[in-house]
Amino acid sequence: MPIIDDLMDAFRCLPGVGAKASQRMVYYLLERDRKGAEVLANKLMLALEKIGHCKLCRNFSEYDICHICSDSKRDNSQLCITESPADMLAVEQAANYRGLYFILMGKLSPLDGIGPEELGMDFLEQRFQSQQIKEIILATNPTVEGEATAYFITTLAQKYEIEVTRIAHGVPLGGELEYVDKGTLSKAFEGRLKL
Amino acid sequence: MPIIDDLMDAFRCLPGVGAKASQRMVYYLLERDRKGAEVLANKLMLALEKIGHCKLCRNFSEYDICHICSDSKRDNSQLCITESPADMLAVEQAANYRGLYFILMGKLSPLDGIGPEELGMDFLEQRFQSQQIKEIILATNPTVEGEATAYFITTLAQKYEIEVTRIAHGVPLGGELEYVDKGTLSKAFEGRLKL
Repeated sequence: MPIIDDLMDAFRCLPGVGAKASQRMVYYLLERDRKGAEVLANKLMLALEKIGHCKLCRNFSEYDICHICSDSKRDNSQLCITESPADMLAVEQAANYRGLYFILMGKLSPLDGIGPEELGMDFLEQRFQSQQIKEIILATNPTVEGEATAYFITTLAQKYEIEVTRIAHGVPLGGELEYVDKGTLSKAFEGRLKL
Repeated sequence: MPIIDDLMDAFRCLPGVGAKASQRMVYYLLERDRKGAEVLANKLMLALEKIGHCKLCRNFSEYDICHICSDSKRDNSQLCITESPADMLAVEQAANYRGLYFILMGKLSPLDGIGPEELGMDFLEQRFQSQQIKEIILATNPTVEGEATAYFITTLAQKYEIEVTRIAHGVPLGGELEYVDKGTLSKAFEGRLKL
């Protein structure tokens, strides 16, 4: 197979990239951005070699302990738990949260063979045992699996008398009540706050 | 900057990939397809090192003469001229064309500093001079620049008494007359064929 066809094939490993898009990427890089392509290839190799998981929060990191977990200015009595690194990044960018994180890298899903062990619940329990943590903030997604995961963690945390909170679910900003689904609206009523 | 952020930046050199998509790609590769990512990085380096332009048709190729130009079974009296390698590939995949190609790698656009030289018109003229070519098929795009480019090449070819044809423009298959734009419909009338 010609190298160029091989490369088009290789680009299809990217999510959301099919035959047409990979062809476009290859021609674009060869024609107009060989420098960028070289940087991409090098950074990719470097990342694959260096990036593992933080031993505390399980997020991707090039260090044993990531820069958030090792930041002494952060409040180590709070622990926000998310399903994925992308969710964690969304929280970090949007909320004024200054505590620590724990990333499950998935959610409980027995049918797919994902149980407590795969989500690092033993590591999480170790952190509960260390007695630093006073509050955990559950930021798993509001899906069936996400809720089941949140419930599992709640039970675990209560053994160590840690306060458990869950981020609010309700009408999104800019949303119109008329177009909000029933489940969300019902959650918004349950979670109403006193003014 | 952490390696992972660096990598997200590097992915943004791809066409149509912004901050969100590059984040998704990086997390996907690190989490689920490290093997694919390694293959991608290696193929990319290999392609950058090996792939240049075919000396005859100007298409991307790892050889001095690409596999189409060096295929003795193809008809070397016909030459199809396209703007880009992607256009050439579309012709190759769709039409039962068995002649050769010449790829301009652009179109005449004096305002952007793209003149006959940048499009390899001197190479093209050399091929006209060699007297092998009996017919050129213009498959530049039906835009102002594409038409200007086609006109330029027509003038050049007529000097060597080569027959010049242009691919047909008209109503696309599956298209409905009602929704076809005026320009296309007018071209379809001009180009009507006797049954």
